[in-house]
Amino acid sequence: MAAIYHRVALIGLGLIASSMALAIRRRGLADEITGTARSADTRAAAVELGLCDRVYETAAEAVEGADLVVLCVPVGVMGAVAEEIAPRLAAGATLSDVGSVKQAVIAAVGPHVPEGVHFIPAHPLAGTEHSGPRAGFAELFENRWCLLVPPEGTPPEPVARLRELWEGMGAHVDTMDPAHHDLVLAVTSHAPHLIAYTMVGVADDLGRVTDSEVVKYSAAGFRDFTRIAASDPTMWRDVFLTNKAATLEILGRFTEELFALQRAIRTEDGAHLFDYFTRTRAIRRGIIEAGQDTDAPDFGRVKKAGD
Amino acid sequence: MAAIYHRVALIGLGLIASSMALAIRRRGLADEITGTARSADTRAAAVELGLCDRVYETAAEAVEGADLVVLCVPVGVMGAVAEEIAPRLAAGATLSDVGSVKQAVIAAVGPHVPEGVHFIPAHPLAGTEHSGPRAGFAELFENRWCLLVPPEGTPPEPVARLRELWEGMGAHVDTMDPAHHDLVLAVTSHAPHLIAYTMVGVADDLGRVTDSEVVKYSAAGFRDFTRIAASDPTMWRDVFLTNKAATLEILGRFTEELFALQRAIRTEDGAHLFDYFTRTRAIRRGIIEAGQDTDAPDFGRVKKAGD
Repeated sequence: MAAIYHRVALIGLGLIASSMALAIRRRGLADEITGTARSADTRAAAVELGLCDRVYETAAEAVEGADLVVLCVPVGVMGAVAEEIAPRLAAGATLSDVGSVKQAVIAAVGPHVPEGVHFIPAHPLAGTEHSGPRAGFAELFENRWCLLVPPEGTPPEPVARLRELWEGMGAHVDTMDPAHHDLVLAVTSHAPHLIAYTMVGVADDLGRVTDSEVVKYSAAGFRDFTRIAASDPTMWRDVFLTNKAATLEILGRFTEELFALQRAIRTEDGAHLFDYFTRTRAIRRGIIEAGQDTDAPDFGRVKKAGD
Repeated sequence: MAAIYHRVALIGLGLIASSMALAIRRRGLADEITGTARSADTRAAAVELGLCDRVYETAAEAVEGADLVVLCVPVGVMGAVAEEIAPRLAAGATLSDVGSVKQAVIAAVGPHVPEGVHFIPAHPLAGTEHSGPRAGFAELFENRWCLLVPPEGTPPEPVARLRELWEGMGAHVDTMDPAHHDLVLAVTSHAPHLIAYTMVGVADDLGRVTDSEVVKYSAAGFRDFTRIAASDPTMWRDVFLTNKAATLEILGRFTEELFALQRAIRTEDGAHLFDYFTRTRAIRRGIIEAGQDTDAPDFGRVKKAGD
């Protein structure tokens, strides 16, 4: 495939950026990749893994001459990074990001974007419970969605070019407005993560059931919650602080519904429970039909693994 | 392996019973397997799949001459089934079950158990989101726990023999008292299932986010909830109705903790969120070290699947 960008600068070198670097290299989507990270360990790992052609100590150096700069840092520090790099961004360059929240990123980054630079926020809906530069792999984005959130008035050419990059990495691409993005993600990601974190915390904190019992008997449903609740704490703290309104709204709806089901249990309203549990099966079928999960029964993950 | 029982009767032929039949056959753990199910379709499937040596229309016929009878029906009907088969149980036989709740099963089944029959409730912590006789597979119990809940005064020999059967099917076996079992399972299974059902229901019901958006973007965390929430509605209705007290207790603790995290979001207490999310990572490490899940990043399930 022909290179889509000449030089891509990755600011932050965690799971997403390292996966981008590997995917871009494998498909030849850029002539060059530069990168930077605040931590010296991360920079050393990036050099060792050959993620970038050049790894710099500062973001300002890394963005020099790049026609695409992607902010891959936690949402909470994007504003500060944008301020630092703004004076060094090349005219005509595209500035993007991979944050899980879009309104807050636009509010923090937008004011720093210089005239002549195209700011196109993006969010690849891909990740694992692991973090850091060693967690990346080139296939992470394959068959996953990437949502682009171009501000009104962005010319179509840079949007099409960024879309081409994400499609080149194997993703499907949609565009969405930032408020709707934040609501959709509150439902499909942010609220479920908070709920998983909560349930795992409760289990950990329950004196009468030991941690060792929780661990041994986790296969009964809890196990998937622990995987979700093993995600990067800094990233998730920032997500909840920056997508506060939508997350709290969905959690409010969740609590309302949970109380209704608790009442059905308390009053032994079996019909209500049965109907509710039947309805939720349909959503699952939709997800499998859409190719976003497999219908294979969830067993044997242990066997596929370590051995 | 030498047969551990002469004739095993499986009452109900869903996911668990069909997996038991396949595992027992493969390892030669019984000379004969008989089975029954209320639905004619299920009985026909069992015959077609060769799960049992003989499939009967009634439970009373199926248990004739069996030295092990296993109730594999929803918890809510176990009492009625026990009443039906009680007069036909052979002296010295063991009566067991595979229900997800133990106190309610003991209360419902116990009074019907005739003198000379050993009642040893059991609960294999294994399953998938699929149900029915075609969902079974011989490896379902491998490396999973099976909890035995023998009433006080049960002689050790029949307990050891049932343990041997479960170990023969690949499971690890522990014994536990029924109240503790129900509390442990409320934490590791029942509350997580209700929470997953609730979250999927909320997503389905949210006018401003379409079902098609929920389905497309489910990979961001929600997907695992939908898998849990695709489990058998009858089974889960009965679980919640029969493990009411422990489930409501854990949900109460969950709500308390969720409210504390919601307040941390509302007041922007990032340190509280960060500490909580860091603590939950440790439980995940324990589960991986205990071999109850793999540390492989959760991606590519789609690729492993249908294609």
